[in-house]
Amino acid sequence: MAAAGGGELQLLGCWYSPYAIRAKVALGVKGLSYEYVEEDLFSKSDLLLRSNPVHKKVPVLIHGGRPVCESLVVVQYVDDAWAAPPLLPADAHARATARFWAAYVDDKFFQAWRALFRSTTDEQRAAAFKGVLPEVEVLEQAFRECSQGKAFFGGDAIGLVDIALGGFLAWFKAVDQVSGTCLLDEARFPGLAAWAERFMDVDAVREAMPDGRRLLEHYRGFLAKLA
Amino acid sequence: MAAAGGGELQLLGCWYSPYAIRAKVALGVKGLSYEYVEEDLFSKSDLLLRSNPVHKKVPVLIHGGRPVCESLVVVQYVDDAWAAPPLLPADAHARATARFWAAYVDDKFFQAWRALFRSTTDEQRAAAFKGVLPEVEVLEQAFRECSQGKAFFGGDAIGLVDIALGGFLAWFKAVDQVSGTCLLDEARFPGLAAWAERFMDVDAVREAMPDGRRLLEHYRGFLAKLA
Repeated sequence: MAAAGGGELQLLGCWYSPYAIRAKVALGVKGLSYEYVEEDLFSKSDLLLRSNPVHKKVPVLIHGGRPVCESLVVVQYVDDAWAAPPLLPADAHARATARFWAAYVDDKFFQAWRALFRSTTDEQRAAAFKGVLPEVEVLEQAFRECSQGKAFFGGDAIGLVDIALGGFLAWFKAVDQVSGTCLLDEARFPGLAAWAERFMDVDAVREAMPDGRRLLEHYRGFLAKLA
Repeated sequence: MAAAGGGELQLLGCWYSPYAIRAKVALGVKGLSYEYVEEDLFSKSDLLLRSNPVHKKVPVLIHGGRPVCESLVVVQYVDDAWAAPPLLPADAHARATARFWAAYVDDKFFQAWRALFRSTTDEQRAAAFKGVLPEVEVLEQAFRECSQGKAFFGGDAIGLVDIALGGFLAWFKAVDQVSGTCLLDEARFPGLAAWAERFMDVDAVREAMPDGRRLLEHYRGFLAKLA
Protein backbone atom coordinates (compact mmCIF):
# COMPACT_ATOMS: atom_id res chain seq x y z
CA MET A 1 0.00 0.00 0.00
CA ALA A 2 1.11 3.52 -0.74
CA ALA A 3 1.84 5.85 2.14
CA ALA A 4 -0.84 8.49 2.52
CA GLY A 5 1.47 11.47 2.20
CA GLY A 6 0.75 14.84 3.76
CA GLY A 7 0.28 13.44 7.24
CA GLU A 8 -1.49 10.53 8.85
CA LEU A 9 -4.74 9.12 7.51
CA GLN A 10 -7.51 7.87 9.78
CA LEU A 11 -10.98 6.67 8.85
CA LEU A 12 -13.77 6.76 11.41
CA GLY A 13 -16.33 4.22 10.23
CA CYS A 14 -18.82 1.63 11.26
CA TRP A 15 -18.72 -1.87 9.76
CA TYR A 16 -22.34 -1.86 8.57
CA SER A 17 -22.54 1.73 7.29
CA PRO A 18 -22.96 1.86 3.49
CA TYR A 19 -21.48 5.35 3.66
CA ALA A 20 -18.36 4.16 5.48
CA ILE A 21 -18.07 1.37 2.89
CA ARG A 22 -17.89 4.08 0.20
CA ALA A 23 -14.95 5.73 1.95
CA LYS A 24 -13.18 2.38 2.42
CA VAL A 25 -13.61 1.52 -1.27
CA ALA A 26 -12.27 4.91 -2.38
CA LEU A 27 -9.23 4.61 -0.12
CA GLY A 28 -8.72 1.02 -1.26
CA VAL A 29 -8.86 1.89 -4.96
CA LYS A 30 -6.18 4.52 -4.38
CA GLY A 31 -4.08 1.93 -2.55
CA LEU A 32 -3.81 4.12 0.54
CA SER A 33 -2.93 2.73 3.96
CA TYR A 34 -4.85 4.21 6.85
CA GLU A 35 -5.81 3.59 10.45
CA TYR A 36 -9.40 2.38 10.67
CA VAL A 37 -11.33 3.36 13.80
CA GLU A 38 -14.58 1.45 14.37
CA GLU A 39 -17.26 3.68 15.90
CA ASP A 40 -20.14 2.52 18.07
CA LEU A 41 -22.97 4.66 16.69
CA PHE A 42 -24.88 4.28 19.94
CA SER A 43 -21.94 5.63 21.93
CA LYS A 44 -19.98 7.92 19.65
CA SER A 45 -16.37 8.72 20.45
CA ASP A 46 -15.20 12.20 21.36
CA LEU A 47 -13.05 12.08 18.24
CA LEU A 48 -16.14 11.55 16.04
CA LEU A 49 -18.18 14.24 17.78
CA ARG A 50 -15.28 16.67 17.56
CA SER A 51 -14.48 15.81 13.93
CA ASN A 52 -18.05 15.96 12.63
CA PRO A 53 -19.92 18.26 15.03
CA VAL A 54 -22.55 19.12 12.42
CA HIS A 55 -23.81 15.66 11.48
CA LYS A 56 -22.05 13.44 14.07
CA LYS A 57 -21.99 10.68 11.47
CA VAL A 58 -19.51 8.30 9.88
CA PRO A 59 -17.51 8.25 7.71
CA VAL A 60 -15.02 10.88 8.71
CA LEU A 61 -11.66 10.84 6.99
CA ILE A 62 -8.98 12.60 9.03
CA HIS A 63 -5.98 13.58 6.96
CA GLY A 64 -3.09 15.34 8.64
CA GLY A 65 -5.40 16.20 11.54
CA ARG A 66 -8.10 17.77 9.34
CA PRO A 67 -11.48 16.02 9.07
CA VAL A 68 -13.48 15.48 5.89
CA CYS A 69 -17.13 14.50 6.40
CA GLU A 70 -20.01 13.17 4.27
CA SER A 71 -19.29 10.12 2.15
CA LEU A 72 -19.57 11.65 -1.33
CA VAL A 73 -17.44 14.58 -0.20
CA VAL A 74 -14.90 12.10 1.18
CA VAL A 75 -14.76 10.17 -2.12
CA GLN A 76 -14.22 13.39 -4.08
CA TYR A 77 -11.63 14.55 -1.55
CA VAL A 78 -9.71 11.30 -1.94
CA ASP A 79 -9.79 11.83 -5.69
CA ASP A 80 -8.65 15.46 -5.42
CA ALA A 81 -5.85 14.62 -2.98
CA TRP A 82 -4.51 11.48 -4.70
CA ALA A 83 -4.87 11.64 -8.45
CA ALA A 84 -4.28 8.04 -9.55
CA PRO A 85 -6.21 5.98 -10.36
CA PRO A 86 -8.98 8.54 -10.99
CA LEU A 87 -12.45 8.15 -9.47
CA LEU A 88 -13.89 10.98 -11.56
CA PRO A 89 -13.30 11.41 -15.28
CA ALA A 90 -11.17 14.29 -16.58
CA ASP A 91 -13.87 15.60 -18.95
CA ALA A 92 -16.06 18.32 -17.38
CA HIS A 93 -19.33 16.94 -18.78
CA ALA A 94 -18.54 13.39 -17.68
CA ARG A 95 -17.68 14.72 -14.20
CA ALA A 96 -21.04 16.50 -14.05
CA THR A 97 -22.83 13.32 -15.14
CA ALA A 98 -21.08 11.35 -12.40
CA ARG A 99 -22.00 13.96 -9.75
CA PHE A 100 -25.59 14.00 -11.00
CA TRP A 101 -26.02 10.23 -10.63
CA ALA A 102 -24.22 10.05 -7.29
CA ALA A 103 -26.66 12.68 -5.98
CA TYR A 104 -29.55 10.72 -7.51
CA VAL A 105 -28.52 7.61 -5.58
CA ASP A 106 -28.54 9.52 -2.29
CA ASP A 107 -31.67 11.54 -2.91
CA LYS A 108 -34.28 9.83 -5.08
CA PHE A 109 -33.15 6.21 -5.03
CA PHE A 110 -32.29 5.99 -1.34
CA GLN A 111 -35.56 7.58 -0.23
CA ALA A 112 -37.50 4.92 -2.13
CA TRP A 113 -35.31 1.99 -1.05
CA ARG A 114 -35.35 3.17 2.58
CA ALA A 115 -39.08 2.40 2.69
CA LEU A 116 -38.30 -1.22 1.78
CA PHE A 117 -35.42 -1.34 4.26
CA ARG A 118 -37.71 -0.13 7.06
CA SER A 119 -40.68 -2.34 6.18
CA THR A 120 -41.68 -4.80 8.87
CA THR A 121 -44.75 -6.45 7.33
CA ASP A 122 -45.33 -8.27 4.03
CA GLU A 123 -47.85 -5.64 3.04
CA GLN A 124 -45.40 -2.78 3.64
CA ARG A 125 -42.71 -4.73 1.78
CA ALA A 126 -44.87 -5.28 -1.30
CA ALA A 127 -45.78 -1.58 -1.48
CA ALA A 128 -42.21 -0.42 -0.87
CA PHE A 129 -40.77 -2.85 -3.41
CA LYS A 130 -43.23 -1.59 -6.00
CA GLY A 131 -42.19 1.96 -5.12
CA VAL A 132 -38.47 1.38 -5.54
CA LEU A 133 -38.61 -0.44 -8.91
CA PRO A 134 -39.05 2.72 -11.02
CA GLU A 135 -35.97 4.20 -9.31
CA VAL A 136 -33.95 1.09 -10.12
CA GLU A 137 -35.18 1.29 -13.71
CA VAL A 138 -33.82 4.84 -13.89
CA LEU A 139 -30.48 3.57 -12.60
CA GLU A 140 -30.51 0.70 -15.14
CA GLN A 141 -30.86 3.28 -17.91
CA ALA A 142 -28.20 5.46 -16.28
CA PHE A 143 -25.85 2.48 -16.26
CA ARG A 144 -26.37 1.92 -19.98
CA GLU A 145 -25.69 5.60 -20.73
CA CYS A 146 -22.73 6.03 -18.38
CA SER A 147 -20.94 2.74 -19.01
CA GLN A 148 -21.30 2.83 -22.81
CA GLY A 149 -20.92 -0.94 -22.93
CA LYS A 150 -18.01 -0.98 -20.48
CA ALA A 151 -17.92 -2.72 -17.10
CA PHE A 152 -18.73 0.15 -14.73
CA PHE A 153 -20.58 3.46 -14.47
CA GLY A 154 -17.08 4.91 -14.49
CA GLY A 155 -16.08 3.02 -17.66
CA ASP A 156 -13.32 0.40 -17.44
CA ALA A 157 -12.72 1.03 -13.75
CA ILE A 158 -14.98 1.95 -10.83
CA GLY A 159 -15.69 5.60 -10.11
CA LEU A 160 -17.88 7.91 -8.04
CA VAL A 161 -21.26 6.47 -9.13
CA ASP A 162 -20.11 2.87 -8.77
CA ILE A 163 -18.96 3.65 -5.23
CA ALA A 164 -22.12 5.63 -4.39
CA LEU A 165 -24.49 2.82 -5.42
CA GLY A 166 -22.15 -0.06 -4.70
CA GLY A 167 -21.84 0.94 -1.05
CA PHE A 168 -25.39 -0.36 -0.65
CA LEU A 169 -24.92 -3.76 -2.34
CA ALA A 170 -24.40 -5.79 0.83
CA TRP A 171 -27.51 -4.11 2.24
CA PHE A 172 -29.56 -4.87 -0.88
CA LYS A 173 -28.73 -8.53 -0.33
CA ALA A 174 -29.65 -8.48 3.37
CA VAL A 175 -32.95 -6.69 2.69
CA ASP A 176 -33.69 -9.04 -0.23
CA GLN A 177 -33.11 -12.05 2.02
CA VAL A 178 -35.51 -10.79 4.67
CA SER A 179 -38.10 -9.46 2.19
CA GLY A 180 -37.99 -12.33 -0.29
CA THR A 181 -37.30 -9.76 -3.01
CA CYS A 182 -34.58 -9.47 -5.64
CA LEU A 183 -33.84 -5.80 -6.14
CA LEU A 184 -31.28 -6.14 -8.95
CA ASP A 185 -33.14 -8.96 -10.70
CA GLU A 186 -31.18 -10.25 -13.70
CA ALA A 187 -34.22 -10.49 -15.97
CA ARG A 188 -35.53 -7.04 -15.07
CA PHE A 189 -32.25 -5.16 -14.71
CA PRO A 190 -29.58 -7.11 -16.64
CA GLY A 191 -27.12 -4.22 -16.73
CA LEU A 192 -27.16 -3.54 -12.99
CA ALA A 193 -27.23 -7.25 -12.07
CA ALA A 194 -24.03 -7.91 -14.04
CA TRP A 195 -22.51 -4.63 -12.80
CA ALA A 196 -23.12 -5.65 -9.18
CA GLU A 197 -21.25 -8.92 -9.67
CA ARG A 198 -18.32 -7.16 -11.27
CA PHE A 199 -18.28 -4.48 -8.58
CA MET A 200 -18.24 -7.03 -5.77
CA ASP A 201 -15.30 -8.75 -7.45
CA VAL A 202 -13.03 -5.67 -7.30
CA ASP A 203 -10.29 -6.17 -4.66
CA ALA A 204 -10.88 -2.83 -2.92
CA VAL A 205 -14.61 -3.61 -2.73
CA ARG A 206 -14.17 -7.14 -1.38
CA GLU A 207 -11.94 -5.79 1.37
CA ALA A 208 -14.49 -3.09 2.30
CA MET A 209 -17.62 -5.24 2.41
CA PRO A 210 -19.08 -6.53 5.66
CA ASP A 211 -19.70 -10.22 6.27
CA GLY A 212 -23.12 -11.06 4.78
CA ARG A 213 -24.31 -13.23 7.66
CA ARG A 214 -23.32 -10.71 10.29
CA LEU A 215 -25.08 -7.95 8.35
CA LEU A 216 -28.24 -10.06 8.03
CA GLU A 217 -28.22 -10.65 11.78
CA HIS A 218 -27.69 -6.94 12.42
CA TYR A 219 -30.56 -6.09 10.08
CA ARG A 220 -32.92 -8.58 11.76
CA GLY A 221 -32.03 -6.97 15.09
CA PHE A 222 -32.79 -3.52 13.66
CA LEU A 223 -36.18 -4.66 12.36
CA ALA A 224 -37.06 -6.30 15.66
CA LYS A 225 -36.62 -2.93 17.38
CA LEU A 226 -38.76 -1.21 14.71
CA ALA A 227 -41.68 -3.64 14.81
CA MET B 1 -18.83 38.93 -22.14
CA ALA B 2 -16.57 36.05 -23.09
CA ALA B 3 -17.75 33.62 -25.72
CA ALA B 4 -18.76 30.30 -24.19
CA GLY B 5 -16.37 28.17 -26.23
CA GLY B 6 -17.04 24.56 -27.12
CA GLY B 7 -20.45 25.25 -28.60
CA GLU B 8 -23.50 27.25 -27.73
CA LEU B 9 -24.61 27.83 -24.15
CA GLN B 10 -28.25 27.85 -23.10
CA LEU B 11 -29.74 28.11 -19.63
CA LEU B 12 -33.23 26.83 -18.95
CA GLY B 13 -34.42 28.64 -15.85
CA CYS B 14 -37.32 30.22 -14.09
CA TRP B 15 -37.09 33.76 -12.75
CA TYR B 16 -38.09 32.91 -9.19
CA SER B 17 -36.15 29.64 -8.81
CA PRO B 18 -33.33 29.96 -6.25
CA TYR B 19 -31.64 27.07 -8.03
CA ALA B 20 -31.75 28.83 -11.41
CA ILE B 21 -30.35 31.94 -9.68
CA ARG B 22 -27.35 29.84 -8.64
CA ALA B 23 -26.67 28.88 -12.25
CA LYS B 24 -27.07 32.48 -13.42
CA VAL B 25 -24.62 33.73 -10.79
CA ALA B 26 -22.03 31.08 -11.69
CA LEU B 27 -22.27 31.91 -15.39
CA GLY B 28 -22.16 35.63 -14.59
CA VAL B 29 -19.05 35.32 -12.41
CA LYS B 30 -17.30 33.54 -15.27
CA GLY B 31 -18.39 36.32 -17.62
CA LEU B 32 -20.05 33.88 -20.01
CA SER B 33 -22.68 34.93 -22.52
CA TYR B 34 -25.60 32.54 -22.93
CA GLU B 35 -29.12 32.29 -24.20
CA TYR B 36 -31.58 32.35 -21.31
CA VAL B 37 -34.80 30.39 -21.78
CA GLU B 38 -37.56 31.15 -19.26
CA GLU B 39 -39.56 28.04 -18.37
CA ASP B 40 -43.16 27.96 -17.20
CA LEU B 41 -42.95 25.31 -14.48
CA PHE B 42 -46.68 24.64 -14.83
CA SER B 43 -46.28 23.91 -18.54
CA LYS B 44 -42.75 22.67 -19.08
CA SER B 45 -41.20 22.84 -22.52
CA ASP B 46 -40.27 19.76 -24.51
CA LEU B 47 -36.69 20.98 -24.34
CA LEU B 48 -36.76 20.92 -20.53
CA LEU B 49 -38.46 17.51 -20.35
CA ARG B 50 -36.00 16.09 -22.87
CA SER B 51 -32.97 17.70 -21.22
CA ASN B 52 -33.80 16.70 -17.65
CA PRO B 53 -36.03 13.62 -17.95
CA VAL B 54 -35.13 12.42 -14.45
CA HIS B 55 -36.08 15.47 -12.37
CA LYS B 56 -37.84 17.69 -14.96
CA LYS B 57 -36.53 20.72 -13.05
CA VAL B 58 -34.64 23.91 -13.73
CA PRO B 59 -31.88 24.89 -14.02
CA VAL B 60 -30.56 22.97 -16.98
CA LEU B 61 -27.41 24.25 -18.61
CA ILE B 62 -27.07 23.06 -22.20
CA HIS B 63 -23.54 23.33 -23.49
CA GLY B 64 -22.81 22.27 -27.03
CA GLY B 65 -26.09 20.33 -27.05
CA ARG B 66 -25.34 18.39 -23.86
CA PRO B 67 -27.45 19.11 -20.76
CA VAL B 68 -26.16 19.49 -17.21
CA CYS B 69 -28.81 19.30 -14.48
CA GLU B 70 -29.05 20.03 -10.75
CA SER B 71 -27.87 23.43 -9.60
CA LEU B 72 -24.82 22.44 -7.54
CA VAL B 73 -23.72 20.12 -10.34
CA VAL B 74 -24.17 22.99 -12.79
CA VAL B 75 -22.05 25.35 -10.66
CA GLN B 76 -19.27 22.75 -10.41
CA TYR B 77 -19.54 22.04 -14.14
CA VAL B 78 -19.16 25.73 -14.94
CA ASP B 79 -16.07 25.76 -12.74
CA ASP B 80 -14.61 22.63 -14.34
CA ALA B 81 -15.29 23.88 -17.88
CA TRP B 82 -14.12 27.51 -17.46
CA ALA B 83 -11.28 27.79 -14.97
CA ALA B 84 -11.15 31.54 -14.25
CA PRO B 85 -12.16 33.04 -11.94
CA PRO B 86 -12.40 29.92 -9.75
CA LEU B 87 -15.58 29.04 -7.84
CA LEU B 88 -13.88 26.26 -5.89
CA PRO B 89 -10.49 26.58 -4.21
CA ALA B 90 -7.47 24.69 -5.56
CA ASP B 91 -6.65 23.02 -2.23
CA ALA B 92 -8.27 19.58 -1.82
CA HIS B 93 -9.33 20.13 1.79
CA ALA B 94 -10.81 23.56 1.06
CA ARG B 95 -12.72 22.03 -1.87
CA ALA B 96 -14.12 19.33 0.41
CA THR B 97 -15.14 21.97 2.96
CA ALA B 98 -16.96 23.94 0.25
CA ARG B 99 -18.79 20.81 -0.98
CA PHE B 100 -19.71 19.91 2.60
CA TRP B 101 -21.33 23.29 3.27
CA ALA B 102 -23.06 23.47 -0.10
CA ALA B 103 -24.64 20.08 0.66
CA TYR B 104 -25.54 21.32 4.15
CA VAL B 105 -27.42 24.27 2.65
CA ASP B 106 -29.49 21.95 0.45
CA ASP B 107 -30.07 19.23 2.99
CA LYS B 108 -30.26 20.42 6.58
CA PHE B 109 -30.75 24.16 6.22
CA PHE B 110 -33.28 24.07 3.38
CA GLN B 111 -35.43 21.44 5.06
CA ALA B 112 -35.76 23.67 8.12
CA TRP B 113 -36.30 26.92 6.19
CA ARG B 114 -38.84 25.24 3.89
CA ALA B 115 -41.16 24.86 6.89
CA LEU B 116 -41.08 28.64 7.38
CA PHE B 117 -41.54 29.23 3.65
CA ARG B 118 -44.63 26.99 3.61
CA SER B 119 -46.17 28.34 6.82
CA THR B 120 -49.56 29.97 6.40
CA THR B 121 -50.46 30.86 9.99
CA ASP B 122 -48.69 32.89 12.68
CA GLU B 123 -48.50 29.82 14.87
CA GLN B 124 -46.82 27.77 12.13
CA ARG B 125 -44.48 30.65 11.40
CA ALA B 126 -43.36 31.02 15.01
CA ALA B 127 -42.62 27.29 15.28
CA ALA B 128 -40.85 27.16 11.91
CA PHE B 129 -38.77 30.25 12.65
CA LYS B 130 -37.68 28.71 15.94
CA GLY B 131 -36.77 25.54 14.05
CA VAL B 132 -34.62 27.23 11.44
CA LEU B 133 -32.57 29.43 13.82
CA PRO B 134 -30.19 26.64 14.95
CA GLU B 135 -29.47 25.87 11.27
CA VAL B 136 -28.65 29.53 10.61
CA GLU B 137 -26.41 29.52 13.69
CA VAL B 138 -24.49 26.58 12.18
CA LEU B 139 -24.10 28.58 8.96
CA GLU B 140 -22.95 31.65 10.93
CA GLN B 141 -20.19 29.53 12.46
CA ALA B 142 -19.42 28.02 9.06
CA PHE B 143 -19.04 31.50 7.63
CA ARG B 144 -16.56 32.43 10.34
CA GLU B 145 -14.52 29.28 9.70
CA CYS B 146 -14.65 29.38 5.89
CA SER B 147 -14.17 33.11 5.34
CA GLN B 148 -11.31 33.48 7.85
CA GLY B 149 -12.13 37.17 8.19
CA LYS B 150 -12.53 37.69 4.43
CA ALA B 151 -15.65 38.85 2.63
CA PHE B 152 -17.13 35.55 1.44
CA PHE B 153 -17.35 31.85 2.26
CA GLY B 154 -15.02 31.49 -0.72
CA GLY B 155 -12.53 34.07 0.64
CA ASP B 156 -11.99 37.30 -1.28
CA ALA B 157 -14.42 36.33 -4.03
CA ILE B 158 -17.67 34.36 -4.12
CA GLY B 159 -17.54 30.60 -4.54
CA LEU B 160 -19.69 27.47 -4.35
CA VAL B 161 -21.06 28.00 -0.81
CA ASP B 162 -21.79 31.68 -1.41
CA ILE B 163 -23.74 30.75 -4.51
CA ALA B 164 -25.53 27.82 -2.82
CA LEU B 165 -26.78 29.94 0.09
CA GLY B 166 -26.96 33.24 -1.76
CA GLY B 167 -29.40 31.83 -4.31
CA PHE B 168 -31.99 31.98 -1.53
CA LEU B 169 -31.38 35.57 -0.39
CA ALA B 170 -34.22 37.17 -2.37
CA TRP B 171 -36.51 34.47 -1.01
CA PHE B 172 -35.37 35.06 2.58
CA LYS B 173 -36.42 38.67 2.16
CA ALA B 174 -39.83 37.79 0.69
CA VAL B 175 -40.52 35.24 3.42
CA ASP B 176 -39.32 37.68 6.10
CA GLN B 177 -41.68 40.35 4.76
CA VAL B 178 -44.67 38.05 4.90
CA SER B 179 -43.71 36.41 8.20
CA GLY B 180 -42.53 39.51 10.02
CA THR B 181 -39.25 37.72 10.72
CA CYS B 182 -35.63 38.63 10.08
CA LEU B 183 -33.76 35.46 9.22
CA LEU B 184 -30.27 36.96 8.92
CA ASP B 185 -30.70 39.35 11.83
CA GLU B 186 -27.66 41.57 12.26
CA ALA B 187 -27.56 41.26 16.04
CA ARG B 188 -27.97 37.49 16.03
CA PHE B 189 -25.95 36.62 12.94
CA PRO B 190 -23.55 39.53 12.25
CA GLY B 191 -21.31 37.53 9.92
CA LEU B 192 -24.11 36.33 7.65
CA ALA B 193 -25.95 39.67 7.70
CA ALA B 194 -22.87 41.51 6.44
CA TRP B 195 -22.07 38.68 4.02
CA ALA B 196 -25.56 38.92 2.50
CA GLU B 197 -25.13 42.62 1.81
CA ARG B 198 -21.76 42.06 0.18
CA PHE B 199 -23.09 39.14 -1.86
CA MET B 200 -26.05 41.13 -3.17
CA ASP B 201 -23.64 43.86 -4.23
CA VAL B 202 -21.65 41.60 -6.59
CA ASP B 203 -22.40 42.47 -10.24
CA ALA B 204 -23.12 38.88 -11.32
CA VAL B 205 -25.50 38.51 -8.36
CA ARG B 206 -27.39 41.76 -8.97
CA GLU B 207 -27.97 40.72 -12.57
CA ALA B 208 -29.27 37.29 -11.51
CA MET B 209 -31.66 38.42 -8.78
CA PRO B 210 -35.40 38.69 -9.35
CA ASP B 211 -37.30 41.89 -8.65
CA GLY B 212 -38.19 41.92 -4.96
CA ARG B 213 -41.77 43.19 -5.38
CA ARG B 214 -42.56 40.69 -8.09
CA LEU B 215 -41.17 37.87 -5.96
CA LEU B 216 -43.22 38.99 -2.96
CA GLU B 217 -46.36 38.98 -5.10
CA HIS B 218 -45.50 35.54 -6.47
CA TYR B 219 -44.94 34.25 -2.93
CA ARG B 220 -48.26 35.65 -1.69
CA GLY B 221 -49.95 33.88 -4.61
CA PHE B 222 -48.20 30.64 -3.68
CA LEU B 223 -49.33 30.92 -0.04
CA ALA B 224 -52.89 31.71 -1.08
CA LYS B 225 -53.02 28.38 -2.93
CA LEU B 226 -51.55 26.55 0.07
CA ALA B 227 -53.90 27.96 2.69
